[in-house]
Amino acid sequence: MSLLLQNVVGELTKLPGIGRRTALRLAMHLLRMEPESVDEMTSAIARFRHEIKHCTRCNNLSDSDICPVCADKERDHATICVVEQVADLLSIENTHQYRGTYHVLGGVISPMQGIAPSDLKIDLLCERIAAGGVKEVILAISTSVEGETTLFYLMSRLRQFEGLKVTTIARGIGFGDELEYVDELTITHAMLNRRELE
Amino acid sequence: MSLLLQNVVGELTKLPGIGRRTALRLAMHLLRMEPESVDEMTSAIARFRHEIKHCTRCNNLSDSDICPVCADKERDHATICVVEQVADLLSIENTHQYRGTYHVLGGVISPMQGIAPSDLKIDLLCERIAAGGVKEVILAISTSVEGETTLFYLMSRLRQFEGLKVTTIARGIGFGDELEYVDELTITHAMLNRRELE
Repeated sequence: MSLLLQNVVGELTKLPGIGRRTALRLAMHLLRMEPESVDEMTSAIARFRHEIKHCTRCNNLSDSDICPVCADKERDHATICVVEQVADLLSIENTHQYRGTYHVLGGVISPMQGIAPSDLKIDLLCERIAAGGVKEVILAISTSVEGETTLFYLMSRLRQFEGLKVTTIARGIGFGDELEYVDELTITHAMLNRRELE
Repeated sequence: MSLLLQNVVGELTKLPGIGRRTALRLAMHLLRMEPESVDEMTSAIARFRHEIKHCTRCNNLSDSDICPVCADKERDHATICVVEQVADLLSIENTHQYRGTYHVLGGVISPMQGIAPSDLKIDLLCERIAAGGVKEVILAISTSVEGETTLFYLMSRLRQFEGLKVTTIARGIGFGDELEYVDELTITHAMLNRRELE
């Protein structure tokens, strides 16, 4: 096999979810693309890796020291939604319903993977709240074992702030989910937290 | 969303089978990689796109004008296996059983997609055979409608070479395939071409 092809396949298979066969298919697609288009792609990748920053306030990915959300004076800076990762932030932003700010932890506490509370941006969150002006912290953490551990740890840290409202996002049956396929824990939770129709 | 992130996601979604969500996951993975590793990947992609050549003899991808298979004197140059694309060649090479050479057509005849015989390396194949020394041409073309069209066209072109043996790869039930799930055409073919046990 051509060394150039072997090389590009080898490099592409380093990416998650891309095996040899997919890498080969991608390489063949690269050949059908204009060389200039390929250059645009590689330079976008290189610039992203070398120039991206983390917002010094909320740890969101950002082109500058303060991310667009934190820099936006129209947003409600008294509300902070705590998420595990940037992808979660983007999912919430896509709803166009939330007008508060965020705080990206950068993961969840996981003794198995060697991730301690000090590896997450929890101190930074506490500093933000200690600076004043924050009324509510919404914890939008996943319901995995690690997520629950992180949730309890966060609650213990946030208890120090008197008058701070700490909430978590609602758990229940998703719109479009079929009851038949929903797990028992979610159904139990949804039944216990049932709401009276008005 | 950060412009750098938006850019890299936009570029990655130009690749086949990569949607917004996958692109975002890949971007997050890039952040976890060492910057040097990312540079190696982008330069492998760029070098592949700019420096890869097509073998002037068989149209295989190659680092130089003649690919390693055509340059190998140990291989049987009297036998040419005709394939649609480089990926097919690599699949056959992976068996380590075939010792002849190849000819990569670069696709199949498809009036729907506007691919005419002249868009494929068929003239180049005929030139190779006309130059002499070729005893057998194995047609390893897919059994799609376009593949069959290409097969008939190739057979009409190859008829001019007297004494040339033209074969196609055997069709039948694959090893490990369960009869229950095999299509009827393949089963019909496999029944008609049954072989007596010795």
